[in-house]
Amino acid sequence: MIMKKAVVLYSGGLDSTTCLAIAKAEGFVPYALSFSYGQRHSFELEKAKEYAPHVGAAEHRVVDIDLRQFGGSALTADTEVPKDRPIDDAIPVTYVPARNTIFLSYALAWAEVLGATDIFIGVNALDYSGYPDCRPEYIAAYEKMANLATKAGVEQGGLKIHTPLIDLTKAEIIRRGLELDVDYGLTHSCYDPTPEGLACGRCDSCQLRLKGFREVGSSDPVDYAVEVGS
Amino acid sequence: MIMKKAVVLYSGGLDSTTCLAIAKAEGFVPYALSFSYGQRHSFELEKAKEYAPHVGAAEHRVVDIDLRQFGGSALTADTEVPKDRPIDDAIPVTYVPARNTIFLSYALAWAEVLGATDIFIGVNALDYSGYPDCRPEYIAAYEKMANLATKAGVEQGGLKIHTPLIDLTKAEIIRRGLELDVDYGLTHSCYDPTPEGLACGRCDSCQLRLKGFREVGSSDPVDYAVEVGS
Repeated sequence: MIMKKAVVLYSGGLDSTTCLAIAKAEGFVPYALSFSYGQRHSFELEKAKEYAPHVGAAEHRVVDIDLRQFGGSALTADTEVPKDRPIDDAIPVTYVPARNTIFLSYALAWAEVLGATDIFIGVNALDYSGYPDCRPEYIAAYEKMANLATKAGVEQGGLKIHTPLIDLTKAEIIRRGLELDVDYGLTHSCYDPTPEGLACGRCDSCQLRLKGFREVGSSDPVDYAVEVGS
Repeated sequence: MIMKKAVVLYSGGLDSTTCLAIAKAEGFVPYALSFSYGQRHSFELEKAKEYAPHVGAAEHRVVDIDLRQFGGSALTADTEVPKDRPIDDAIPVTYVPARNTIFLSYALAWAEVLGATDIFIGVNALDYSGYPDCRPEYIAAYEKMANLATKAGVEQGGLKIHTPLIDLTKAEIIRRGLELDVDYGLTHSCYDPTPEGLACGRCDSCQLRLKGFREVGSSDPVDYAVEVGS
């Protein structure tokens, strides 16, 4: 069997790590792509570098992009990450302008150079309540644009954006990852970890993750700064 | 009259400089955006920095992106720029993977932060014979995607990608620019200038530019390394 190359957007978090494992399980050789974009902490990126070879990424590239110069988000500017807030449908303050559009565009460039026609991104249903660039209709529009943008699209056709997590709840993502032997102890989701790298347990991302593990009936192997139950 | 902000992709070249002048003439306040992307020469970028304030850009930002790490183009890798070749319909070796997609994505991010819903890009008919990401159908698909990607699109609707040069020949672009008092002596188009900054007169970009000035019956005010007639 000839293995096809795929570019996988990979942050070192729970979702993208599961996404990479799924790409591999589907027979692709994953080329993992991470971004350094003026995040207030780089712990997640360090985890990505450490973990990428262990989940079978053929290569791992980190592209340095400076979204901070445009400002506009709690993840890139100096505003507070919200804590203990209810998860609702409003666009959250942690929204980064055009983030997935920029990320996918770099993935498209790398895919074209690799001769790959497949890109994996771990967006899912729990995100697209808040982030417009996580919705299925956005991904479909991006794929259509990408097929018009590139040599690969024009000459070969069929450039595909895979979103294997898009209809899954956090619990279903975790269940699928555990089936594929993903070690979630080597992932990191917190928006606002302690200086020692402990997850805060209270930001939106921690709340969603912990809820997912509770629903699966499994305990989250990462270390938290607060008591989170099991 | 309230002036609307617009992000204008601006390289310091003939087309984007004309595009910026058109945006201004249409009543927009132009926010000029350039990219440093591992070009083999930075002369064009220096011209962009110098000229931007003179054409009325309210701000000029230069985003540093490293496409060189993905390779795949004469403009970013160490291959030869073709000289004296006939202009044909094949995708040229100077094609940069996903370039306009990446450029527009940064423009989208800045537009969102500025509260702007208008982006100008100086693609034109002479380009889209060779570059897939200069065609009208690509721009239309990008605009549709952008409206699904962003807060501005979702909450306000109507994010627009303007391509005022798209149906113009090089001669028509130059004629329009001269009407708007664009000083083409402060633009630069050459893919392969001499160390002193003289245009080579032989690359695709120089050939198209010189042909345009000949058709308008005007002489190109930039300095060339070779005799180019008038």
